Amino acid sequence: MAQTDIVARLLAGDRRALARVVTLIENGAPETRAILAELHAHGGHAHIVGFTGSPGAGKSTLVMQLARELRKREQRIGILAVDPSSPFTGGAILGDRIRMQELAGDPNVFIRSMASRGSLGGLAASTRDVVRALDAAGFDTIIIETVGAGQAEVEIVRAAQSVVVVTVPGMGDDIQAIKAGILEIADIFVVNKADRPGADQTAAELRMLLHLDEHRKERVWRVPIVRTNAMTGDGVPELADKLAAHLATLRTSGMLASRSGQQARSEMLALLHQALIEKIEATIGADEWDRLVAEVVERNRDPYTTADELARRIGLVPPG
Amino acid sequence: MAQTDIVARLLAGDRRALARVVTLIENGAPETRAILAELHAHGGHAHIVGFTGSPGAGKSTLVMQLARELRKREQRIGILAVDPSSPFTGGAILGDRIRMQELAGDPNVFIRSMASRGSLGGLAASTRDVVRALDAAGFDTIIIETVGAGQAEVEIVRAAQSVVVVTVPGMGDDIQAIKAGILEIADIFVVNKADRPGADQTAAELRMLLHLDEHRKERVWRVPIVRTNAMTGDGVPELADKLAAHLATLRTSGMLASRSGQQARSEMLALLHQALIEKIEATIGADEWDRLVAEVVERNRDPYTTADELARRIGLVPPG
Repeated sequence: MAQTDIVARLLAGDRRALARVVTLIENGAPETRAILAELHAHGGHAHIVGFTGSPGAGKSTLVMQLARELRKREQRIGILAVDPSSPFTGGAILGDRIRMQELAGDPNVFIRSMASRGSLGGLAASTRDVVRALDAAGFDTIIIETVGAGQAEVEIVRAAQSVVVVTVPGMGDDIQAIKAGILEIADIFVVNKADRPGADQTAAELRMLLHLDEHRKERVWRVPIVRTNAMTGDGVPELADKLAAHLATLRTSGMLASRSGQQARSEMLALLHQALIEKIEATIGADEWDRLVAEVVERNRDPYTTADELARRIGLVPPG
Repeated sequence: MAQTDIVARLLAGDRRALARVVTLIENGAPETRAILAELHAHGGHAHIVGFTGSPGAGKSTLVMQLARELRKREQRIGILAVDPSSPFTGGAILGDRIRMQELAGDPNVFIRSMASRGSLGGLAASTRDVVRALDAAGFDTIIIETVGAGQAEVEIVRAAQSVVVVTVPGMGDDIQAIKAGILEIADIFVVNKADRPGADQTAAELRMLLHLDEHRKERVWRVPIVRTNAMTGDGVPELADKLAAHLATLRTSGMLASRSGQQARSEMLALLHQALIEKIEATIGADEWDRLVAEVVERNRDPYTTADELARRIGLVPPG
């Protein structure tokens, strides 16, 4: 397929063209950039939702139930699993497998596991690019599922417009970890497995943390706590409603524009950083770079002066 | 104090000069780089140890006990707390306050809280720079304490030569989170509060995870699991021994050189990225940058072509 052809077919809703573009992105094929540059103009309609939380919290089952709920609401759904332990990647329990087959057979659902592809930094970039392709292809909601424990996962989830943090009753110290790292990125909290003992207490603790954190949050949106049971589907319609409400608030408050601005900024900086690396490789070369690093390690050079010299040589700093 | 003066005094062991340099680093003062460039040549002797783990695991108490143990071994100790909830930052319980006063009054101990300074990315850079100053000033062990839940903390802990991950019995899902994110960076596991029920089980679960992970680890070092009770000091001498053993292994195996190489590489890239940002600011200016970002958000431009154009304008890519 020629490039204009594949773009036109993807925009017309051709699933094969979409799958091909996603594969090109994952392989880092050189023609991908031009395709994505074209696709960018056709996006901006999808609701991009990030799901994060500890393994064992039931995220994947919940994502599948949400997808089913949104299908009932006539939406087209994309699901990107960026979690090596996700059942989307294999190893699903029976109930999940049945739900997944139902979804996977639906032409209005696109499921892809991004787990095993390339470096973590590269994973964030390719997830963002696949979201762009799905958005241009007309998917209404694009769900990104990550395990949320590491650096790359947080970066990935920042690409979302609405972030759902999934917890379970009886997490104890986990609540503390949430306080430290995850609280600031959550737009909606879910207490899953809400039929278990301790659900009230977990919800109350979250409520208290959110209250403490309130001064940092945009005032227009109060982070809700939704109780679900992903196995039975209880609470999933409410989660879908809260997501729709969050998107509406993002749009009317101007927060969507400001988040999109931050995302565009960081994407452009990442692309420029890539150009910087390529320039260093082309100007200095791997051998000299390795020699300079070795001299810094041996303390025959310092990193500050060395970086200054390199910045001059690649033209970032005027000579002198 | 003139620059050469302050460097000479810091190298001679003057505490006031050291405190001054640390303050200059935290304030991002322009003269800092030249000072650090000079100091770099005098470092490379300290053992840099990172402590991470959930809040409530007793990290800070353990760090204080370890510092006392290393003082008995005639070492000079630096402690950098990069954790807003650390008692080094305030809010210590009584036992910790007493231990901290004892340490803080010791001229061979330098304690600094880095918690509230600047952005998270900036925090990683200034922690690295303060480590460099302490190293040049002749401290034998420099301990960096972080909460370990977010992106910046992982980046900070990567600056250490030996990483201690502190857990407590009965973590349940926390073990899963460790599996996902922290396992790969741990050189030593501590099960603190080892007098509590469940310590055996936690140690066994960690042992199993480590066994599963073994193929990824450098074979020369088997990650030990040390049981401690930070309140009583039980197990702390063993922890100090394991740290010394890890440093010896790093040195004899060549792993120290390879870790130092990776750290120098990433530091130089970070410095070059900073030069890139300054070049963008100088060439393009905030107004035009904001306008370009807005056009990308409105989809009148795409980020790929825009970044290419900017790379050309700042000279990273030849025109054409």
